[in-house]
Amino acid sequence: MSSENPTNEPRPRVLIIGGGFAGIECASRLATASVDITLADRHNYHLFQPLLYQVATAVLSPADIAAPIRRLLRNQQNVRVVLAELLGVDLQKRRANLQQVKVPYDYLVLATGATHSYFGHEEWAASAPGLKTVEDALEIRRRVLLAYEAAEWEADAEARRAKLTFVVIGGGPTGVELAGALKEIASQTIPKDFRHIDTTTAQVILIEAGPRLLAAMPEKLGLRALQDLEQMGVQVRLNSMVTEITEGLVSIGSEKLLAENIVWAAGVRGSEVAVTLDCELDRQGRVLVESDLSLPGHPEVFVVGDLANLTDLHTGHPVPGVAPAAIQMGRHVANLIRADLANLVDGEHAPRKAFHYRDKGSMSTIGRNRAVASLGGRQFGGFFAWLIWGVVHIIPLIGFRNKLSVIFSWLWSYFSLSKNARLITGRPKMKVKRVRGVDENNQA
Amino acid sequence: MSSENPTNEPRPRVLIIGGGFAGIECASRLATASVDITLADRHNYHLFQPLLYQVATAVLSPADIAAPIRRLLRNQQNVRVVLAELLGVDLQKRRANLQQVKVPYDYLVLATGATHSYFGHEEWAASAPGLKTVEDALEIRRRVLLAYEAAEWEADAEARRAKLTFVVIGGGPTGVELAGALKEIASQTIPKDFRHIDTTTAQVILIEAGPRLLAAMPEKLGLRALQDLEQMGVQVRLNSMVTEITEGLVSIGSEKLLAENIVWAAGVRGSEVAVTLDCELDRQGRVLVESDLSLPGHPEVFVVGDLANLTDLHTGHPVPGVAPAAIQMGRHVANLIRADLANLVDGEHAPRKAFHYRDKGSMSTIGRNRAVASLGGRQFGGFFAWLIWGVVHIIPLIGFRNKLSVIFSWLWSYFSLSKNARLITGRPKMKVKRVRGVDENNQA
Repeated sequence: MSSENPTNEPRPRVLIIGGGFAGIECASRLATASVDITLADRHNYHLFQPLLYQVATAVLSPADIAAPIRRLLRNQQNVRVVLAELLGVDLQKRRANLQQVKVPYDYLVLATGATHSYFGHEEWAASAPGLKTVEDALEIRRRVLLAYEAAEWEADAEARRAKLTFVVIGGGPTGVELAGALKEIASQTIPKDFRHIDTTTAQVILIEAGPRLLAAMPEKLGLRALQDLEQMGVQVRLNSMVTEITEGLVSIGSEKLLAENIVWAAGVRGSEVAVTLDCELDRQGRVLVESDLSLPGHPEVFVVGDLANLTDLHTGHPVPGVAPAAIQMGRHVANLIRADLANLVDGEHAPRKAFHYRDKGSMSTIGRNRAVASLGGRQFGGFFAWLIWGVVHIIPLIGFRNKLSVIFSWLWSYFSLSKNARLITGRPKMKVKRVRGVDENNQA
Repeated sequence: MSSENPTNEPRPRVLIIGGGFAGIECASRLATASVDITLADRHNYHLFQPLLYQVATAVLSPADIAAPIRRLLRNQQNVRVVLAELLGVDLQKRRANLQQVKVPYDYLVLATGATHSYFGHEEWAASAPGLKTVEDALEIRRRVLLAYEAAEWEADAEARRAKLTFVVIGGGPTGVELAGALKEIASQTIPKDFRHIDTTTAQVILIEAGPRLLAAMPEKLGLRALQDLEQMGVQVRLNSMVTEITEGLVSIGSEKLLAENIVWAAGVRGSEVAVTLDCELDRQGRVLVESDLSLPGHPEVFVVGDLANLTDLHTGHPVPGVAPAAIQMGRHVANLIRADLANLVDGEHAPRKAFHYRDKGSMSTIGRNRAVASLGGRQFGGFFAWLIWGVVHIIPLIGFRNKLSVIFSWLWSYFSLSKNARLITGRPKMKVKRVRGVDENNQA
């Protein structure tokens, strides 16, 4: 490293917290800058989150959509990678308190993303896991697969129906994708695997508090998604506010749904670290950043990705919490830091460019050959949208170096309908109840 | 099912416990028999155990070497699959007590395999995990990868050396394969991923109590494996009996090895269920079966695979605990049951054929292009043995229907030296200690 720094002056230290889309993009874009970068994440991998629901529904394996951060950045000499959680930031001393060590910085980029929000009902989390991490996805996969195993042995019809009822709460992209995939497992992937139960009778119920699905996309596409899901056999409940969740029971006001499999896809909030920053947060716990993505009063600290709340000055719209926005934010901050270093006069920063989100479109997949997409002002659905969805979501995996492997897994499972990812691993959190089994009824 | 049973007489019930090589083979070979089969396993997948060490060393992912049992048997109409643990067997009433239900049987096939044996030192298990299940493999993978992460931040030289010391106990095939793979990770796969540590200095120590490696194979091959491992940089310690293991410390008599990563590959014993059978067991807790693989005094109960201890009448040698022997045993029992059903007279079984193990050879891989093999009376090593090893271990995966995907993963990681399976997932069992980090020393 010293070869690039012949004057031996200390180089500015850039500390990036979070190896998601924003953090990785920011680090990569600083590859040729004369800075020393530290990138810390609590996991050793970057996760391609848009495909996480496919791990939860046993189509892909974790290694298909995650890549070690060290490997992604192994050829970039000015970055070092740390596996550590951020405990807090000392903004005055410009030091971040990581799990093992305090790290001083000249620039800090916070890209720690979002986590689930249960809107003040954190007790719902145990009965209705959310889907943000690999562990979440494996837990949901385990619950879904165990539900069929348990139903196969359940002699009581009502109990069996509850085991085969899957409730997804939240009609955004994650909820729509999960509901579609859960229905496909039941109706296409596994019917032949079971002898006692008819898996095609499994119910998938998608509950949305608002009046339509995919609220962030054009109305036409929300309608199309609704039609497609209903045609697949998913029961969609709009204008339905979940008021209570307990183990095996979802309440919508006075209505009770018996369902042993509940997944939460309704709300997100900024990750924990935001509250330690002593700055203004929005209702979802995200940081209200300046137009250049910096923390108010701290031009050396940036907040990017899902943790940032910014209203785009050009459009007047809030920047959405999606992967392309995170990537653009990471790139913007890298450019600002480079401009700073080129123009720094007496410690004063050069005037900063405001961040502008270039919306190239949005899309959401619904089933094995359906999706909805909004691209370049045009909206469409069906197989063509799905094909575009596939291309758009697999191209970025090229950076993972295992693109061919993912494409292969994906095409294979698409054409064969047969998935090895359908493994129940880890110690199940669900208790196994002793039921009056079919054998005792029929044969004993 | 009733269509195949026009007389409506109850068909004999065959209960197979265990979906390993022996259990799956036995069930498949009974596909056309007029029996009702139940196959129970505590996991929902069949595991291709010979490649498990590649999951532990982050080359393959669990889904590459495991396939749902239901899927493997989905087209076989006379079998049903149960996800359940066996709690015990009532030999008199001919009922097996599964976790959820009691299952009556006419034939019982016990194929529950083996687990680790710590030779009476079960307290060693926490410090030195063994490698028998997918969870074991993921735990070892997590520990190995975390060791490098921790070493990267460790400022103290001696502590760093301990973190980068990997001890494998047991010089059988699993130990030899693990030691070779651990050395390859350190020397070839990850050196560029780390900045502070030189991973090629990581020590891998293979400890064997006996005078040679691969004791079950011809002596020449044990020597060849020793040479190959030493050439790769593995320290092999023969005639070294481990006397004590505590967290981070292995004792060989008075000699102490500081090592934070210890893997146990030294001993196996029959699985728990054997002790409940009230029959004679050998020192490794395996069932001493009759020559036809039946339980003494119970011709309707068979014990197959790693759980059985049998001396082959033809050869006078004990049948080894390897996959080909398990498969042959499963097939033998299926044939005996078919013969029984054809010849059953007044409840008397026809005379039974003794089991004979056809040894087609054995082999063990050592590194990315080395192996040793003993086939058809000839012994050889090197690249050619490795090529044969590859073919022999991938062909059987054809039954998994994802053979192409595994071949692809495997070739990919072979040629690219770059592995996405290198993920640290799950909640680590290791505690993270706060160390005096490099930053505080160098910069604060």
